[in-house]
Amino acid sequence: MVSSLATRMDGVAHSVGAVEPRRAHFTTPLPLACGATLDTFELAYETYGTLNSDRSNAVLICHALNASHHVAGYYEEAPDKVGWWDNMVGPGKPLDTTRFFVVSVNNLGSCFGSSGPVSINPATGQPWGADFPLVTVEDWVDAQARLADYLGIGRWAAVMGGSLGGMQALCWAIRYPTQLSHALVIASAPKLSAENIAFNEVARQAILSDPDFFDGHYARQGMRPRRGLRLARMLGHITYLSDEQMEAKFGRQLREGLKFSFASEFQIESYLRYQGEKFAGYFDANTYLRITKALDYFDPAAAHDGDLSKALEDARCAFLIISFTTDWRFPSARSREIMRALIDNRRDVSYAEINAPHGHDAFLLDDAQYHATVRTYYERVAAELGEREGV
Amino acid sequence: MVSSLATRMDGVAHSVGAVEPRRAHFTTPLPLACGATLDTFELAYETYGTLNSDRSNAVLICHALNASHHVAGYYEEAPDKVGWWDNMVGPGKPLDTTRFFVVSVNNLGSCFGSSGPVSINPATGQPWGADFPLVTVEDWVDAQARLADYLGIGRWAAVMGGSLGGMQALCWAIRYPTQLSHALVIASAPKLSAENIAFNEVARQAILSDPDFFDGHYARQGMRPRRGLRLARMLGHITYLSDEQMEAKFGRQLREGLKFSFASEFQIESYLRYQGEKFAGYFDANTYLRITKALDYFDPAAAHDGDLSKALEDARCAFLIISFTTDWRFPSARSREIMRALIDNRRDVSYAEINAPHGHDAFLLDDAQYHATVRTYYERVAAELGEREGV
Repeated sequence: MVSSLATRMDGVAHSVGAVEPRRAHFTTPLPLACGATLDTFELAYETYGTLNSDRSNAVLICHALNASHHVAGYYEEAPDKVGWWDNMVGPGKPLDTTRFFVVSVNNLGSCFGSSGPVSINPATGQPWGADFPLVTVEDWVDAQARLADYLGIGRWAAVMGGSLGGMQALCWAIRYPTQLSHALVIASAPKLSAENIAFNEVARQAILSDPDFFDGHYARQGMRPRRGLRLARMLGHITYLSDEQMEAKFGRQLREGLKFSFASEFQIESYLRYQGEKFAGYFDANTYLRITKALDYFDPAAAHDGDLSKALEDARCAFLIISFTTDWRFPSARSREIMRALIDNRRDVSYAEINAPHGHDAFLLDDAQYHATVRTYYERVAAELGEREGV
Repeated sequence: MVSSLATRMDGVAHSVGAVEPRRAHFTTPLPLACGATLDTFELAYETYGTLNSDRSNAVLICHALNASHHVAGYYEEAPDKVGWWDNMVGPGKPLDTTRFFVVSVNNLGSCFGSSGPVSINPATGQPWGADFPLVTVEDWVDAQARLADYLGIGRWAAVMGGSLGGMQALCWAIRYPTQLSHALVIASAPKLSAENIAFNEVARQAILSDPDFFDGHYARQGMRPRRGLRLARMLGHITYLSDEQMEAKFGRQLREGLKFSFASEFQIESYLRYQGEKFAGYFDANTYLRITKALDYFDPAAAHDGDLSKALEDARCAFLIISFTTDWRFPSARSREIMRALIDNRRDVSYAEINAPHGHDAFLLDDAQYHATVRTYYERVAAELGEREGV
């Protein structure tokens, strides 16, 4: 562990370096909320750092809509493919991989290696496509619990996620209360609002109404509903940024003066088109539909007459809740709902509202106050573990 | 004027009754901001009330995105087709047609009777379709000024509009400063923000990328880009409602329980699909594209290095500015920008921020405080005219 020690001694944060995705195969059937059962399934995952001897320093990272298990480091064959939370996870970073063993997993129904619409349906030997069942946050967490068993992790030091990832951390606290010590719920909400669902629905309709969607069996036709994906991403992107940030970054700047045409004239138009195009090039439409549905469905209070305090009654772990002032997708008020429900249950909860201009996307960025908050929290988690150097 | 007097004496507001759209034909070429010229053009309009003998009681109503010249009353042959601002305009209503002669006009490039993509291009004898030029708020106001000449109205008692209609009222004050006494600018903004443009761009891309759009020449193919129009309207609709109102009206209500499918499950989904479908059935896609562009382009301060106070330097009329607390499309801050620029110029300006839950759409609804504000303002306008009964 010389390099880790060196990293911590010189105080410089580094990348975890080259990493390799792994894959776990599960043969015990997984019943899903929709009523279907996956007889077998696979999960793609990555790990960073070293599991200590008493297997107590493991942290699970849950991803949001379009992300994957590739959280930190890069791939040898693709050095530019840096993990989506590389600023957060690594030696000397807020979630310090010299102290913690970090596990990240691609969710069921996603398109980056775990079982989902683009993977092979064992029953047919063909890609699942539209036949892959709709999955929920609860299903994801159940699958992640299987991965914990597989890795021999009886209890997570922490489960952490932003946005939809935060919902998974919250779900872990409710569903497997004895199997985690801390939940970090960042830029999240206990359920979507009508407006949140409305935006998801427009994105879904863009995909569902794309003539290249073929009822979800586009792969059989050698097609992809790129138009729908483009629109879904353009729209999503607006909700990830704050009005203020968009104004500061783009305002009414023109590319080359007014053209009086429908070519992209304003910089914001060009930016959104670029983001949409890029996304349509790599993301799977059936996955997008399923992940937005999982978002819409998440509502742990629903089984308790809408009482979130009741829903969290069995939670035992400590919580860090973080929200961002300019996030209008999941405003701070939504985080405070979670906080209040935890306080009702006399749970150990810390809450930070970060004054950041970047809207919902702030959870992915390296705002100093935000990172310091997470770093300090993990120092506490490490202290609780009775941190031992060089284990 | 017995009926008008009776109306005012019993204090009950009534409909203007059955109305008929009219059409004015103009043969003096109209130069447009884009560089093109319309050699001839037509404007569809309606009038309510009676022009007084000194032609001083005329009020112009400007419409927003998807509305028309049919502001008040109904059509004999379609009694259900009530004007879009019928709660505002009529005998005994805030804009009282027993006192004022109200003129409403369909804007150039729209699809309800004025020259636009669905009207006939005199040069070809075919519908204009995609060949109709892009028009601006300034072009609309210039065309409205021609209509004022045609009707013999040298000076409007007031020009009034909400949202994009408010931009036209503002533009009148700048462009024809001596030809109006009052401007009522409601739920509006001096220019779109980057986020406003972003939403418009997603809506446009939905239309432009619809395979049934055929580069705007869908009519020649006997087609209509209904998918794109549906999406554009669904998205627009989200921005017209407040988060609070959507939550109160729909929340997470389900239609018939979870289906684990992409059928509409939540009430908000069903509502948006219905609104989208309805809109796609009557609105013209080329018109939608042009009107959103006119919104994006409007920026009177641009010619003055972004200085709105300079842009309003020549304005002479008095102003009533109204905004609504829950309007996140054009928040109150945008109205205050206009107010401050007018105060800089020592103009006569009244400003009311109405505490209403309905978001941007509030300008169309009959909120009591809002209507009382408009009513009181028009009482002032009438008093200034030296109102004469029975004229």
